[in-house]
Amino acid sequence: MTRPVLLDCDPGIDDMLAILTAVASPEVELVGVTTVGGNVGIDTTTRNALDVLAMAGRADIPVARGADRPYLRSLSARAESVHGDNGLGGVTLPTSSAGPVDATALELIVETVRTATEPVTLVATGPLTNVAHLFAVHPNVASRLARLVVMGGSIGAGNRTPAAEFNIWADPEAAYRVLTEPGLPRPVPTTLVGLDVTYRTAYSPDDLDRLRSAGTVAALCANALGYYLSAYGRDHGMDVVPLHDPLAMAEAIRPGLVTVARAFVEVDTTTGPSRGNTLVDLYGRPTVEVGVDVDVPSTLDFITTQLESLAAVGLVEGELASRGRDWVSR
Amino acid sequence: MTRPVLLDCDPGIDDMLAILTAVASPEVELVGVTTVGGNVGIDTTTRNALDVLAMAGRADIPVARGADRPYLRSLSARAESVHGDNGLGGVTLPTSSAGPVDATALELIVETVRTATEPVTLVATGPLTNVAHLFAVHPNVASRLARLVVMGGSIGAGNRTPAAEFNIWADPEAAYRVLTEPGLPRPVPTTLVGLDVTYRTAYSPDDLDRLRSAGTVAALCANALGYYLSAYGRDHGMDVVPLHDPLAMAEAIRPGLVTVARAFVEVDTTTGPSRGNTLVDLYGRPTVEVGVDVDVPSTLDFITTQLESLAAVGLVEGELASRGRDWVSR
Amino acid sequence: MTRPVLLDCDPGIDDMLAILTAVASPEVELVGVTTVGGNVGIDTTTRNALDVLAMAGRADIPVARGADRPYLRSLSARAESVHGDNGLGGVTLPTSSAGPVDATALELIVETVRTATEPVTLVATGPLTNVAHLFAVHPNVASRLARLVVMGGSIGAGNRTPAAEFNIWADPEAAYRVLTEPGLPRPVPTTLVGLDVTYRTAYSPDDLDRLRSAGTVAALCANALGYYLSAYGRDHGMDVVPLHDPLAMAEAIRPGLVTVARAFVEVDTTTGPSRGNTLVDLYGRPTVEVGVDVDVPSTLDFITTQLESLAAVGLVEGELASRGRDWVSR
Amino acid sequence: MTRPVLLDCDPGIDDMLAILTAVASPEVELVGVTTVGGNVGIDTTTRNALDVLAMAGRADIPVARGADRPYLRSLSARAESVHGDNGLGGVTLPTSSAGPVDATALELIVETVRTATEPVTLVATGPLTNVAHLFAVHPNVASRLARLVVMGGSIGAGNRTPAAEFNIWADPEAAYRVLTEPGLPRPVPTTLVGLDVTYRTAYSPDDLDRLRSAGTVAALCANALGYYLSAYGRDHGMDVVPLHDPLAMAEAIRPGLVTVARAFVEVDTTTGPSRGNTLVDLYGRPTVEVGVDVDVPSTLDFITTQLESLAAVGLVEGELASRGRDWVSR
Repeated sequence: MTRPVLLDCDPGIDDMLAILTAVASPEVELVGVTTVGGNVGIDTTTRNALDVLAMAGRADIPVARGADRPYLRSLSARAESVHGDNGLGGVTLPTSSAGPVDATALELIVETVRTATEPVTLVATGPLTNVAHLFAVHPNVASRLARLVVMGGSIGAGNRTPAAEFNIWADPEAAYRVLTEPGLPRPVPTTLVGLDVTYRTAYSPDDLDRLRSAGTVAALCANALGYYLSAYGRDHGMDVVPLHDPLAMAEAIRPGLVTVARAFVEVDTTTGPSRGNTLVDLYGRPTVEVGVDVDVPSTLDFITTQLESLAAVGLVEGELASRGRDWVSR
Repeated sequence: MTRPVLLDCDPGIDDMLAILTAVASPEVELVGVTTVGGNVGIDTTTRNALDVLAMAGRADIPVARGADRPYLRSLSARAESVHGDNGLGGVTLPTSSAGPVDATALELIVETVRTATEPVTLVATGPLTNVAHLFAVHPNVASRLARLVVMGGSIGAGNRTPAAEFNIWADPEAAYRVLTEPGLPRPVPTTLVGLDVTYRTAYSPDDLDRLRSAGTVAALCANALGYYLSAYGRDHGMDVVPLHDPLAMAEAIRPGLVTVARAFVEVDTTTGPSRGNTLVDLYGRPTVEVGVDVDVPSTLDFITTQLESLAAVGLVEGELASRGRDWVSR
Repeated sequence: MTRPVLLDCDPGIDDMLAILTAVASPEVELVGVTTVGGNVGIDTTTRNALDVLAMAGRADIPVARGADRPYLRSLSARAESVHGDNGLGGVTLPTSSAGPVDATALELIVETVRTATEPVTLVATGPLTNVAHLFAVHPNVASRLARLVVMGGSIGAGNRTPAAEFNIWADPEAAYRVLTEPGLPRPVPTTLVGLDVTYRTAYSPDDLDRLRSAGTVAALCANALGYYLSAYGRDHGMDVVPLHDPLAMAEAIRPGLVTVARAFVEVDTTTGPSRGNTLVDLYGRPTVEVGVDVDVPSTLDFITTQLESLAAVGLVEGELASRGRDWVSR
Repeated sequence: MTRPVLLDCDPGIDDMLAILTAVASPEVELVGVTTVGGNVGIDTTTRNALDVLAMAGRADIPVARGADRPYLRSLSARAESVHGDNGLGGVTLPTSSAGPVDATALELIVETVRTATEPVTLVATGPLTNVAHLFAVHPNVASRLARLVVMGGSIGAGNRTPAAEFNIWADPEAAYRVLTEPGLPRPVPTTLVGLDVTYRTAYSPDDLDRLRSAGTVAALCANALGYYLSAYGRDHGMDVVPLHDPLAMAEAIRPGLVTVARAFVEVDTTTGPSRGNTLVDLYGRPTVEVGVDVDVPSTLDFITTQLESLAAVGLVEGELASRGRDWVSR
């Protein structure tokens, strides 16, 4: 008995890992992927989602294209410096022959939730633009979700600004709608997986070496993560690479890896210096479960096992120890 | 050759007049009505739209229910003190046997625009929540609109706060999306019909007396407007009753009644005291046409003629000189 | 029996006229002038105040230098395009041998109010920085003012931005302190003379010609106003020149020239597009008297009479019909 | 050779400890104390400053009364729940026969800095209202300070709101002026001692027991801190009592106890949920030194030694183990 999972994402290196983790996990069925402009633009995130699924042998999973920009104010900056111009740290995948479905991201989510035989879990690893549209236009459909797991925000400092984490910063109004004032007839159990726990769920360079030696999609992920690692070293002085999006997916697949506290979360929607801040009030009327601790060994072991188990369809292994570009189509 | 018009509204006394003016005008075909929570809640605005159409003999026009609340922040106040608890100044209409269509407001707008044989004019006389959803979720469909005419905003003072007009105040983020930063692949010609021109397009008590004597839906409108007149007298010291929404519809039907200036319009989305202000910069990069003058006699004559021409289906005339409640079902 | 008047200003063409009007009026005694950075920087406004007083034969009136920048956020722009680089529309005055007193503007105001034999009227025709310091640091002294007359703000549109008048825009936090939440043990009767009335109190080009022919300081004022006139023509399409600051001084000297309404005035201190807006709520708890009408003929006649009555000390008349620079030291 | 130190404070339990630490330290000379409304109102903070000095045998040190409210917006809340109604956790001191000097806080600071034979260190342990007045009204005097040490702010979460520390929250505009955009002709070396380091500089209940047994002012401090301890236990789930203000004073007396990083600090002055947040950008143009680490053992030892060394003038010891009220005048 597998649980249906929808993923709304902006691949993105760590989004790729979230997709692959979901596809490899027998506990869940990835029933659809929707895309949003975020780390890179919507054309690239949609293409990446298609190609990642094809590489994992799951070109059958429908991909729908969503919003390219936030509800208000066009993005002043993407995250190409972190994810590379192609969004995957320069790792080139074979181009999938599949294209996105004709429906919008919103339409695919609505249709999937309406027709699913059991409640769907929605995992969101990009800006919350599409999810906010779901809440605003189809509150009754949103109410039928089993659970919403969001990668975003932080109790402490941000990574995009001193106050804000990237996903929330990229569309604070959408995040406010989803996390602060959902306005649904029935609340959706919502878990916020923020930097406080994702920063601790990280691969070391040695971990990346082990992944490379696995000779499956894990090796390719290691190459992409190598790019990510150097960006985090440069920008944040870190010597490990955090698994933001895979942690959110892991928690959705195996609930309890993240320890949560119930809290009122207010997203800062001012245009001041704290725009995109997620204010976590442990003493307020709770709206969200916020991750405060994580079982790091179990989580890393789980994600690694999934990645290592997946063959890379249509690819032969090149010089794994060097660049991602060494992967070539068969 | 009639032009197709869609109306997104929150009836509302003056929304009722906008509906009736459209139905009575041979130049246009009212192809659908969508509703939004605003003056009163969504249940009431939807019911009123259905009942007004039935009274005008046009229960065949589809009505779709839209958003009950703004994108962000639940409404702290409706406008029952201006429009009465039932939204129609206490005037009771026969209940239409028709109900709203199964689709959402957004879905009805998208379907109508996609299938229309010629470009559709969208008139918006309530908060811009549904219109912003159209822009955000279906930018390509929105781009196909012939024109957007919005009742809202002001260059000078507001009517809901010292800074803000009611429709804009009720969902400033939606108004920002539509008026300030539409983000469409092809811009939609947009006209903002604000208080600067609607306040001047007003019926005097004598005008209302003449409408009452017409013995058609005009009489019923006069009774509802009597309620509105006392509210404006109480709140703004006015002794005439402005025709906000009918003016927007009249301009959509007969372009040119309103004289416009091209301007950059920035909607204030702060939570400060100017929230909902529409800042009109005549020297900025123009995004919108803003009404700066109006041909009052021609406009009043046009609206009056339409209202007087419509028979009130299913109603017999009671004591017209007194209260709206005197209308009774046959 | 003359009433003592203090002027806090940023000369500035119309500030010059306010100084001269005060000096020429027998009803009041100008007991001090304090300066603030605004139209131009503090060095220039202070020098101009000294030189204007000397030209009027009143180099004995103490001038004290105040704040060069607002409480928060350095000025992003002055108003040189309106007042000329030297602040007086290019009109060059003989340099006074007097310098500012050793005390700060705040110290001069405090000392003057404390030692005056009757309550002092404070007229403020620049950003309210110094006045807010008085309210914040010496609330008990501020409470002893007879009256505060402020040139600033508007009920309708602004002149520096679509929302804001220049003086308020230049230091909104100070204006908030003075106008919205003074926090004094005893309220000071405060009159806000805004664009709604100053725009109507304007000289035509013909008026300027008449001033020129008077052959006194009036001629020199006419030359400076000619510069102002062209700036207002260029920026606002106006063909007359408003007397912002002289109107505030005239009202201080002859109370009642401006008709006022009591209102709650909230200054917008957000960093949004309405920053510096003065929201006038006629229905709120009143804090301020706001000018809503003005006796234009009496005001213009009063100001003109004062200017024409003053000899220009130390100057010989050159080619009055042409440029301000034609004035030369004797 | 002692260095002159001025203290601007709002006693307040931990302000009392800061005063006593300064008085007891031979390295510095406390040359004046100025007060501000904060933890409790200005009447109480001024009275407490006088009484604490008298108890330490230093009624000769001048105390000047400053601002009772922030620059903008009256305080919506004090901190009586943390410091007790009398500001000293219910500990009653003998009333000093001294009163505040006639000058304002601003005047005392200006006079002290101008006449000091060597540069003065200013320590601020309350809202920054008075300090901002110094910067705004007397920038040249402020520029002569040797150093400014501020207790306030945090890199992580706040203690008054999820975003803001109390002192900064109580007057964010003043904090912005002092920390973000000082606008001085010569920058003052400024150290921000925030919650990140003060929370770690804390007494345990056992420490309080040891202080009580010392039989000097230390015992009285222990009683007041007992009140503080229960407030922090109730509000923050802490079982130790942080020494916010004494740490700032200790760092001023013995520079280097706190390890700092140079950073750009932007104070949030919006009226949104992050109002009063201190955004610390380690990669921006540095304006301030921010405490990031502290030598806890040395600091606690230093403070304890000072408190234990001071006799409590005019007091006899009652039941030290019980309540602060047990202290009585001789």
